[in-house]
Amino acid sequence: MKKDDKLVQEITSREVDFAKWYTDIVRKAELIDYSSVRGCCVLRPYGYAIWENIQKILDAKFKELGHENVMMPLFIPESLLQKEKDHVEGFAPEVAWVTMGGSEQLAERLCVRPTSETLFCEHYAHIIHSYRDLPKLYNQWCSVVRWEKSTRPFLRTAEFLWQEGHTMHATAEEAIEETERMLGVYADFAQEQLAMPVVRGRKTDKEKFAGAEATYTIEAMMHDGKALQSGTSHYFGDGFAKAFDITFTDRDNQLKHPHQTSWGMSTRIIGGIIMTHGDDNGLVLPPAVAPVQVVIVPIAFHKGGVLETAQQLCQTLQQAGLRVKLDDSDASPGWKFAEYEMKGVPLRVELGPRDIEAGVCVAVPRDNREKIEVPIAELAQRVPELLEAYRRRLYEKALQNREARTTAARTMEEVKAQSAAGNGFIKTMWCGELACEEAMKEQAGLTSRCMPFEQETLSDVCPVCGKPAKTMVIWGKAY
Amino acid sequence: MKKDDKLVQEITSREVDFAKWYTDIVRKAELIDYSSVRGCCVLRPYGYAIWENIQKILDAKFKELGHENVMMPLFIPESLLQKEKDHVEGFAPEVAWVTMGGSEQLAERLCVRPTSETLFCEHYAHIIHSYRDLPKLYNQWCSVVRWEKSTRPFLRTAEFLWQEGHTMHATAEEAIEETERMLGVYADFAQEQLAMPVVRGRKTDKEKFAGAEATYTIEAMMHDGKALQSGTSHYFGDGFAKAFDITFTDRDNQLKHPHQTSWGMSTRIIGGIIMTHGDDNGLVLPPAVAPVQVVIVPIAFHKGGVLETAQQLCQTLQQAGLRVKLDDSDASPGWKFAEYEMKGVPLRVELGPRDIEAGVCVAVPRDNREKIEVPIAELAQRVPELLEAYRRRLYEKALQNREARTTAARTMEEVKAQSAAGNGFIKTMWCGELACEEAMKEQAGLTSRCMPFEQETLSDVCPVCGKPAKTMVIWGKAY
Repeated sequence: MKKDDKLVQEITSREVDFAKWYTDIVRKAELIDYSSVRGCCVLRPYGYAIWENIQKILDAKFKELGHENVMMPLFIPESLLQKEKDHVEGFAPEVAWVTMGGSEQLAERLCVRPTSETLFCEHYAHIIHSYRDLPKLYNQWCSVVRWEKSTRPFLRTAEFLWQEGHTMHATAEEAIEETERMLGVYADFAQEQLAMPVVRGRKTDKEKFAGAEATYTIEAMMHDGKALQSGTSHYFGDGFAKAFDITFTDRDNQLKHPHQTSWGMSTRIIGGIIMTHGDDNGLVLPPAVAPVQVVIVPIAFHKGGVLETAQQLCQTLQQAGLRVKLDDSDASPGWKFAEYEMKGVPLRVELGPRDIEAGVCVAVPRDNREKIEVPIAELAQRVPELLEAYRRRLYEKALQNREARTTAARTMEEVKAQSAAGNGFIKTMWCGELACEEAMKEQAGLTSRCMPFEQETLSDVCPVCGKPAKTMVIWGKAY
Repeated sequence: MKKDDKLVQEITSREVDFAKWYTDIVRKAELIDYSSVRGCCVLRPYGYAIWENIQKILDAKFKELGHENVMMPLFIPESLLQKEKDHVEGFAPEVAWVTMGGSEQLAERLCVRPTSETLFCEHYAHIIHSYRDLPKLYNQWCSVVRWEKSTRPFLRTAEFLWQEGHTMHATAEEAIEETERMLGVYADFAQEQLAMPVVRGRKTDKEKFAGAEATYTIEAMMHDGKALQSGTSHYFGDGFAKAFDITFTDRDNQLKHPHQTSWGMSTRIIGGIIMTHGDDNGLVLPPAVAPVQVVIVPIAFHKGGVLETAQQLCQTLQQAGLRVKLDDSDASPGWKFAEYEMKGVPLRVELGPRDIEAGVCVAVPRDNREKIEVPIAELAQRVPELLEAYRRRLYEKALQNREARTTAARTMEEVKAQSAAGNGFIKTMWCGELACEEAMKEQAGLTSRCMPFEQETLSDVCPVCGKPAKTMVIWGKAY
């Protein structure tokens, strides 16, 4: 177990320095590499494979709901970005500008897309003419660029991968329904597939997307109590449609503007997975997106029959549809244990000569390291149960963390005390005024995460101004 | 059949104006839309779905051969692009430059990747240390940008989608083997899945990739006789490795530079599919990549039982793993026939009340429009056979076109006469000198397509200079 100890020592403990622990993990689990391109990371095979699994699940769900994939250009001409006033104000300060093609200065500079509403609108103006053309339910998988000042792998990078859905509907009701439906898709995905409990809610006007009428969000709490906005869904009304002159002839023969939504989830969610489930031994991955779900580690495998049995077992599990790796390299079992714990493989299966004699193997879940003896003949059947139990434990543990770090406050004194105590989510009532939202930031260092769909009545007044409260808000410090 | 006639009239005939026919097809089959971004297209759902099918097949093949997907940054700092001399000379004149982030001028300008050798090399320098780290077999799916002066959908656009494989090997032999293996993957894919006959060969030094020691290519002939370079594979030796200081300790304890390859196929291949198989009624798609493989058109389907039978049939075919669409819209059968011919759906199945009484349906392949009566109960079993026969016919037809338009020339008079006669591929011997290659361009308007792996001896001398010939070259006019 020498190498095991060595590896473990190489990661900073979460309790010592959470930020350092995080960057240790993303490098040692071989998720990313830094590049000489400011703020951009290399997604290594193991990191990219997590994203591929996320893509596969979400893409199938989007298509099941009738969405189609398209690909818009990478660039947006400055004049196109400027068509919707709020949108350009929100994004122009943080875009990368292409000003030269080859050795020639461009007549009009192009930004590298920070998001693609404007491009979709330009296209929709070409193809939407009649109510028969609606709804249009498009999505694209791509990367976008936002010229962030300070960056962190997955959480905030100048370039990141995401999907962006952009839909057009005949009525406001249908568009709002779509906005809510897609937030539900993200919430279910986070909770059921990623074992990340999330709060669903609406963003305040200050925090909403540039150009949107309403932004819905799922907010997750990380191990350290900080919030991560994990997926958003926007309702635009017909603001962009008017700016881009998109019209359709409705059933009543009237010319109308369609109503629009957009929604996105990005590689940021991988940062969320790391900070929700990871521990001092490394990554802890939810089975649905783990590149390797089961690793088989044969013990003393130069003895007769061990490797053969391990190979058969590997094949049986693969045929059962599992992502399995057999590590028959020369490294010691202890080194392998540490390696796959670092990589967050949900289940390790150990198999030695004495096990084989007894017809059993030992399954060890990544989270609790409980040693479970399983008859070899039953393993393929047992693994899905073991993975499901593991997923539930991850979810419960994350939920307990969130509940332990969520408090309610009725006065600013309570807010400040709870924030200073390092609480994660602080619930208060709110009058709805921007000034009070800004005061929460100045006085307690908190930003509004959302106005949760599940409202509570904590008191009748806003803790900042004392005026009548309109809604309950969850506040926190956010990544 | 009124609407049918109308639609057919809307496409320019191939024989009247092949270029116009092509752009008519890409718009009327709803593959692309133009955008206000110079030289960039929107890939619409039907066009993007073809690319998704191409991706699925190639990606599975790459992974089967041990390749892993990664994601490199979108940008390349100018200093990084300049590290390999030939490479920067080849690409710098045609890149888009980012010079501003937000409102600040960048200290060093960044180009939008035209290809990613330099980024892969920077990363490989970080992660390759020992022979145990080799080979590295990486691939990425992304878009790249080349600031082309004149553009055409799929064939030449400022931004295009592609995959780029980048591999590192301990020895030159292994790297050359990989270069050849991946060209073989492209050739098999083109011929077997896309029904496009291709010539495999090596590019001349003039036509090879900037920075490569050798470029291999598959060259296809379009319906009009012009060539399309459809996939390339490059062997770099250790030139980049030296420029980027990538070294590894070999088994013999010596520090060595690894040997490198890269290989790519792009959305350009969709242009190749269109121009190889399409006809005056629209697209003709190979089954492997057709978004819809079978369209069911119920006739007089308001009569009892027709729609139900069509729905059952649709389900049965889907369960057999086929991509099927049932069009139960109000449009006339004639309009539907024309629509799905325009979209190149390989097989149409017609189903009317009298057919159902007789327990049959009528299958009509897109290419020859033969009406094949098939018992409904046998359709699911017959469709794969019908699609396979169709694929073979597409391949044979394309091969016949290529053979009819391929000639051999021994003198410049023959070359000029054959080129003037509109022949597609002209085979000649070649001395290997650049001057003679340039003379072919000046005197006959031809560029070298490749030195085919399957060589013939047409004569002993180069038709341009009369000196001893070293190799046979295929010349042509290229997209």
